[in-house]
Amino acid sequence: VTDVLARLAANIQRPDEDARMAARERQAVLTKPAGSLGRLEDLSVWLAGVQGSCPTRPLERVRVVVFAGDHGVATTGVSAYPAAVTAQMVRNVLSGGAAVNALARLAGAQVRVVDMAVDADLSDLPADVGEHKVRRGSGRIDIEDALTRDEVERAFAAGLAIADSEIDSGADLLVAADLGIGNTTPAAALVGALTRNDASLVTGRGTGIDDATWMRKCAAVRDAMRRARPVLGDQLQLLATAGGADIAAMTGFLLQAAARRTPVVLDGVVSGASALVAQRIAFRAADWWVAGHLSSEPAHALALNRLSLDPLLDLGLRLGEGTGALLAVPLVKAAAATLAEMATFDEAGVSDRDDARHLDVRLDPTSDGLA
Amino acid sequence: VTDVLARLAANIQRPDEDARMAARERQAVLTKPAGSLGRLEDLSVWLAGVQGSCPTRPLERVRVVVFAGDHGVATTGVSAYPAAVTAQMVRNVLSGGAAVNALARLAGAQVRVVDMAVDADLSDLPADVGEHKVRRGSGRIDIEDALTRDEVERAFAAGLAIADSEIDSGADLLVAADLGIGNTTPAAALVGALTRNDASLVTGRGTGIDDATWMRKCAAVRDAMRRARPVLGDQLQLLATAGGADIAAMTGFLLQAAARRTPVVLDGVVSGASALVAQRIAFRAADWWVAGHLSSEPAHALALNRLSLDPLLDLGLRLGEGTGALLAVPLVKAAAATLAEMATFDEAGVSDRDDARHLDVRLDPTSDGLA
Repeated sequence: VTDVLARLAANIQRPDEDARMAARERQAVLTKPAGSLGRLEDLSVWLAGVQGSCPTRPLERVRVVVFAGDHGVATTGVSAYPAAVTAQMVRNVLSGGAAVNALARLAGAQVRVVDMAVDADLSDLPADVGEHKVRRGSGRIDIEDALTRDEVERAFAAGLAIADSEIDSGADLLVAADLGIGNTTPAAALVGALTRNDASLVTGRGTGIDDATWMRKCAAVRDAMRRARPVLGDQLQLLATAGGADIAAMTGFLLQAAARRTPVVLDGVVSGASALVAQRIAFRAADWWVAGHLSSEPAHALALNRLSLDPLLDLGLRLGEGTGALLAVPLVKAAAATLAEMATFDEAGVSDRDDARHLDVRLDPTSDGLA
Repeated sequence: VTDVLARLAANIQRPDEDARMAARERQAVLTKPAGSLGRLEDLSVWLAGVQGSCPTRPLERVRVVVFAGDHGVATTGVSAYPAAVTAQMVRNVLSGGAAVNALARLAGAQVRVVDMAVDADLSDLPADVGEHKVRRGSGRIDIEDALTRDEVERAFAAGLAIADSEIDSGADLLVAADLGIGNTTPAAALVGALTRNDASLVTGRGTGIDDATWMRKCAAVRDAMRRARPVLGDQLQLLATAGGADIAAMTGFLLQAAARRTPVVLDGVVSGASALVAQRIAFRAADWWVAGHLSSEPAHALALNRLSLDPLLDLGLRLGEGTGALLAVPLVKAAAATLAEMATFDEAGVSDRDDARHLDVRLDPTSDGLA
């Protein structure tokens, strides 16, 4: 398994530096003051790098993968909602009634739900929903491992396989999404453990919990972090100890997307925690991801900071399901559209600034990821 | 004229409070934790209010109106670009090569350019571009009025007429956009004068000017603000003294949209300055507007603060043309989609939180505009 991870990491390359430089040069001659599109310009440079193409290609096959799973820790009362909601919401997403569906329709994205560890019998659902299911509910991470070693390896491998199947079927932009009552608890524990922050700093209000529930959640996070400490050097074991099948699968998914040179929009704290674990496995992987938004979960900001990813939106979302990432998809498309469709000063017969000939086009071949 | 303004102000009503309350109640029973969509929920409440309908209707006819004009103050060297660029950019927008075109195509919006005071003979362009033209270039506001009294009244009336024509042809969401070398100088002067801030606090880098140019611009803003001080109580005279034909037209446009109960997405500092003047004419008008983004021009934040509008995006844009507003249009559409398309807990058979029956649905009939 260590070999598998090492091979995976070795397969993850840097985005195309030539395409990035070409995008920076092109942004400087498009009919607008250089730099006046702000972060949209940086985003277009990132997209050019991950696509290996300038101008960028339009994004026509955006796919959202919702990793669903229950968490034993939910039985300790860390959520405002009963655990039964996870299975109910899986059905809601499949019938098109969830927030992710409304936002995906608008963004022209397709939604796939993967049951990694929902604590319910969902065998009546389409076969591809449950084909990678590892178990019913991950273990209670405050007192026991979420997964056995065999289970975590299967969940991680499922993530690789899911990324492969999406990319093989033509996905040009992926959204990593989560669904599961209690899933912000393992996410907080992983972020706390990997960024060495106290449980009180990473524990958030999740679905909207009161103070007493927050204190219970904080204690569970602290216990899980204590259990995680001895295994921080072994990322798969860390996912088995303090993560869950959904998070392990998402971690594999993010890494395989990077290995396959396919860009990913991250969503909230659960994909942020998965990304943090994935970065430990392959430090270059984060170059292939963009942070869609900043959620109101405190661990999310800490994870993004460690990943050196600057979120595109800050709208106070805390829903998951890929909603924050989907809201950012039009921004990524907008970055592609401006780079590809705008006229240059020469083409449009527009005068450039008087001193433009002397301006340094800022090229920084040492910079990586999204500025 | 005072009668016209008073009648206009009296025609501007509050958004529909019943629809707003219905939207808040509906957000509380949709299949997600209450409040978990953050500002998207507030935006849906705003949209319900301005549409007078819950659920909201999809936004299918988004129209961008680009108010183009030159400013005499540009001859003092306050911009990095020559004034000839304004006319060249008008042609670039009409041929589809500008940033606004790329972003409008993506957002499904149509773009209209109105030449209010471009300092060029554009009579070869389609008739509707120049039908409201007031003069070639507004006056140099550091030493003279931008417009005569007759000109400002014609420009303001043009804005009313343009809003009417767009709304009569079916627009359901308007974007107020600007185009013109030097136009951030009058915008800064108006914001400085109306918010009582020093010229140095409202003067920005515009298209990207160096320190020496910034000092010249700051001096011009200070001179214009001194000239504006005696007429702060007469908004049309203020626009004539320190504004310009483009800004006067945009001010009328924003007010008539509000009077016609049609929502507007504001763009950068120029539409922000126009909105500030418009709010002085009709204090309820801002309820009909949403701030698309926060530009990097310092006067913009001051204007939005005074308008009590919280920008949806903060991406460091400083281009104008409606670009920041167009990037926010998908967020407004997303707010509508979630409110209209998501299933309720009852419909989807999803369990609500255990204490949901006891939760106060937060209704605040005294609150106005976007929270």
